[in-house]
Amino acid sequence: MIQMIATPRLPSPETLSLAEQVAQMIVVRTTGHLFDHEAEYPQWEATNADLEKYLALGVGGVILLGGSAAEVGVRSQQLQSQAKYLLLVAADVEEGVGQRFSGATWFAPPMALGEIARRDLPLALDLAERMGSAIAQEATAIGINWLLAPVLDVNNNPANPVINVRAFGETAQTVAELISAFIAGAKKSPVLTSAKHFPGHGDTDIDSHLQLPVVGHDFERLQALELVPFERAIAANVDSVMTAHLQLPNIDPNFPSTLSKVTLSGLLRRDMGFDGLIVTDALVMGGITQQYGHAEAAVLAVEAGADILLMPGDVEGAIAAVCDAVHEDRIAPDAILRSVERIWRAKHKIADLPVTDSFSQHAWQQQAVPPVQLEKMATDPARALAAEILRASQQVSHAPNKSLGQVISAPLIPGQNLVLVDDVLHCPFLGRTAPAVTLPANQGYTLRLVDSRSADVRLLDTAVTTLVQVFIRGNPFRSGRGLSAIALEYIQALGENVQAVVVYGSPYVWQQIQSILPAQTPCVFTYGQMKEAQAIALQPLLNPEAEQAMVGATKSAFTD
Amino acid sequence: MIQMIATPRLPSPETLSLAEQVAQMIVVRTTGHLFDHEAEYPQWEATNADLEKYLALGVGGVILLGGSAAEVGVRSQQLQSQAKYLLLVAADVEEGVGQRFSGATWFAPPMALGEIARRDLPLALDLAERMGSAIAQEATAIGINWLLAPVLDVNNNPANPVINVRAFGETAQTVAELISAFIAGAKKSPVLTSAKHFPGHGDTDIDSHLQLPVVGHDFERLQALELVPFERAIAANVDSVMTAHLQLPNIDPNFPSTLSKVTLSGLLRRDMGFDGLIVTDALVMGGITQQYGHAEAAVLAVEAGADILLMPGDVEGAIAAVCDAVHEDRIAPDAILRSVERIWRAKHKIADLPVTDSFSQHAWQQQAVPPVQLEKMATDPARALAAEILRASQQVSHAPNKSLGQVISAPLIPGQNLVLVDDVLHCPFLGRTAPAVTLPANQGYTLRLVDSRSADVRLLDTAVTTLVQVFIRGNPFRSGRGLSAIALEYIQALGENVQAVVVYGSPYVWQQIQSILPAQTPCVFTYGQMKEAQAIALQPLLNPEAEQAMVGATKSAFTD
Repeated sequence: MIQMIATPRLPSPETLSLAEQVAQMIVVRTTGHLFDHEAEYPQWEATNADLEKYLALGVGGVILLGGSAAEVGVRSQQLQSQAKYLLLVAADVEEGVGQRFSGATWFAPPMALGEIARRDLPLALDLAERMGSAIAQEATAIGINWLLAPVLDVNNNPANPVINVRAFGETAQTVAELISAFIAGAKKSPVLTSAKHFPGHGDTDIDSHLQLPVVGHDFERLQALELVPFERAIAANVDSVMTAHLQLPNIDPNFPSTLSKVTLSGLLRRDMGFDGLIVTDALVMGGITQQYGHAEAAVLAVEAGADILLMPGDVEGAIAAVCDAVHEDRIAPDAILRSVERIWRAKHKIADLPVTDSFSQHAWQQQAVPPVQLEKMATDPARALAAEILRASQQVSHAPNKSLGQVISAPLIPGQNLVLVDDVLHCPFLGRTAPAVTLPANQGYTLRLVDSRSADVRLLDTAVTTLVQVFIRGNPFRSGRGLSAIALEYIQALGENVQAVVVYGSPYVWQQIQSILPAQTPCVFTYGQMKEAQAIALQPLLNPEAEQAMVGATKSAFTD
Repeated sequence: MIQMIATPRLPSPETLSLAEQVAQMIVVRTTGHLFDHEAEYPQWEATNADLEKYLALGVGGVILLGGSAAEVGVRSQQLQSQAKYLLLVAADVEEGVGQRFSGATWFAPPMALGEIARRDLPLALDLAERMGSAIAQEATAIGINWLLAPVLDVNNNPANPVINVRAFGETAQTVAELISAFIAGAKKSPVLTSAKHFPGHGDTDIDSHLQLPVVGHDFERLQALELVPFERAIAANVDSVMTAHLQLPNIDPNFPSTLSKVTLSGLLRRDMGFDGLIVTDALVMGGITQQYGHAEAAVLAVEAGADILLMPGDVEGAIAAVCDAVHEDRIAPDAILRSVERIWRAKHKIADLPVTDSFSQHAWQQQAVPPVQLEKMATDPARALAAEILRASQQVSHAPNKSLGQVISAPLIPGQNLVLVDDVLHCPFLGRTAPAVTLPANQGYTLRLVDSRSADVRLLDTAVTTLVQVFIRGNPFRSGRGLSAIALEYIQALGENVQAVVVYGSPYVWQQIQSILPAQTPCVFTYGQMKEAQAIALQPLLNPEAEQAMVGATKSAFTD
């Protein structure tokens, strides 16, 4: 772990122009792909030409999404070489670098750890620390120096469409314990962590990507529940705290948390004593942009106490608006300087910046940016850890006196393999080589792939023995509730012809499905959707011998 | 262009052991991805552990498939650093590096150039040369030094499932002209080219990946047609010739071409005077493995005159079997030495090997392997060239006195967007951002996605105005004929409700569809399936103003 260096070795913030100081407070979104034409969200992602312009202005960081881990390694180096000062390179890697960048390790969603914690807290803490450590190692290896993780929200509302299994649990205590372990693990590498979403986004049933949720909690309630994990994270030296786009009228009757001085400067900075980076959630999100313009949202966030503006809708407009606000005495120049000082401190944590009085751009570029180390990606231990978490959190229900393999295989009449997904055009976990497709096919099952768009239960052949596999999560932007209704309808129509059900993703949908299943129908639930999760979930259903080995593995996971 | 160097600067072949000499004759298949767990065809692709073993044995090259261009750049460097001698790094980039590796430029299949040649041969020759040059530049930039292109087959059998639009045309003369231009373009970069598949695979209707096709041609017929492009390629100094897995009983009654001494050593080497590398097509293909074992196929290929064994089913077994055949006097040691000398000459063409008497592995690693140059990938000129070829080869039929936009847009009643694909689990050209999905959606069309597996014309709503888009090519491994029958059935069922049809891929299916379409139904055919092809094909249908610009662009392409 690289120690925080007290003496700044970047140029003194005062030597930067005001516009440069404000630019340092901005983090721009771009694709992890090398080429513009590969951007998956071109409407949100800066092109390479735009990036060059923003880097020349001196923006402080980028947030990357999409691409292979290898190309992100190349890209992060490229961007650092173009940047004025060391860049923050952030990514939403809550479930590992592989969640966002292909080739890296993809872990189960954090709630898998919460599940394990219910049965065996010490094991869950150990796994959480190792997961944090593995994610930080893979991030560092490809130049990502800021994990926008862990999620600190307590998912006490099962209908929450945006947090859901991204949370470490449903109680404040479990979340507080697990995120402390995660942060401790992450801090073994020179990366920043981020506690999100302040002051707590767990108890909402509206997606703030689209609208601004209103939550009636008062301070006492927050202190009793939502703030508990944040207090623990601050105690664990979390490097940054990300704000939530939530309206809490009992805390601030005027502004959502992201733009609330009461919440950021009052509650978080003064009362809770957090002196790290306060970063907004994406300012382009509907919950903010619908009510405030791009420019005003940026000014209000800085006024409220944010040090970093994540993905402002208009980069140059945001810089100009904040500069204007300083000139108009809405924002004190000192507040900007203090933010840059916090940014400088953060940058010293992630790179071994050269000791030099006369700051030289060339010097830090040559010495400070860690090299790409692809040999640290997707290592056997990291992949084994991901599999261990999947196994230990997997849930199985079946006839108690029979092994699962016996239930399924004894009268093995291959039928149809009904795979339900939300959108067949966007399920990176499927494909020709996905175990959910290949393993049943190897046993003679016929694939029937249905998505929300094509679903029509009248077209289902209900007379055939059917293995049902449902891929469903609480999903921002597109609620999974449409698909859960479809799954329930299909399962009811199949009746006794449901041979077994596997649910990938949502424990809440799994509970719903279990409640309507015919007695003794084998049912497997896994938090993961990736290929590894599929192989682990299907093994006991389709290959009873492997189940024995697997049960052994699961056992040893619990007794380690 | 790097000149061939007469004096070998690799160690004299005699100084290698026999097993090392034979190992140099082997090219192993592996994924372009960095990590084993990403391999898309794990049954065919050597793992990293296996590769390390093969490289230690001294295999001469690798063939890569899959992954992003950026990671292939990293991987090719990694592999070179592990190799004993400079590795041949091959890839099947007939349609550009982007056909196999994401991020790079993906060109239309070669038959698009044949189409342009019918109307404007000088333009087609210019485009072919520029396409060869662009592909070679992108390959070199990521360490691919051997293009397994161009295809020289003359596709005079429209039912050909394996060559089809991979050919540059349907006549020997067109193919001969275009491939000469392509080779001349490619030779501007230090890469090897490969003329395939000798002695001509165009007139088959069986896929040799699965079975061995039998072709009745005699020598006179070959000389009049199939050999014409090969003669031109040899005159153009093509670096290698790849064999076909075809049985030609009138040429060699005993062996398929890949294993035929008459064909390789007699016809190609002696009679046609080719002194470059003779490389087998993949030895694991069904056309070979079904009849001969892995080991015997390797021995027979070397006996026949092959210098390179591509993808033998068992690498170590092949080396051992060929060594045994030398010890048993089936193969002369001199024949092996001459093959290694040809391989050495080829390797001198692709790298500036250091002049040194005492060959040092370290020396060439430091000096010979060109650096990865990602700035040469997917450049604006390369992407503009790909678009120009798509535009110039696109075919449109519609009412002659109206613009296409008027036909469609005047009574613009958005209906359903029926997209037909062979296998929804394997259509990398689709996805949420594919223009075939997004452009009609922007106009209010409802997507209906159907693949061969899910097709059932009884489920089609035939009462709705329908834009029909068919993605279909002659496809090795999976014949497109199933889908073409489905497309015809759907279009007939829709009758007058077919608003327009776009066919992506097969000109033969396009002809079939045109023949059954109601009069004056607009129909667009494009050789490409990638996103760029979709945008270009849909522009005149969904945005009549853009059509004017496009027609202008197409015109200027023809008059350049």
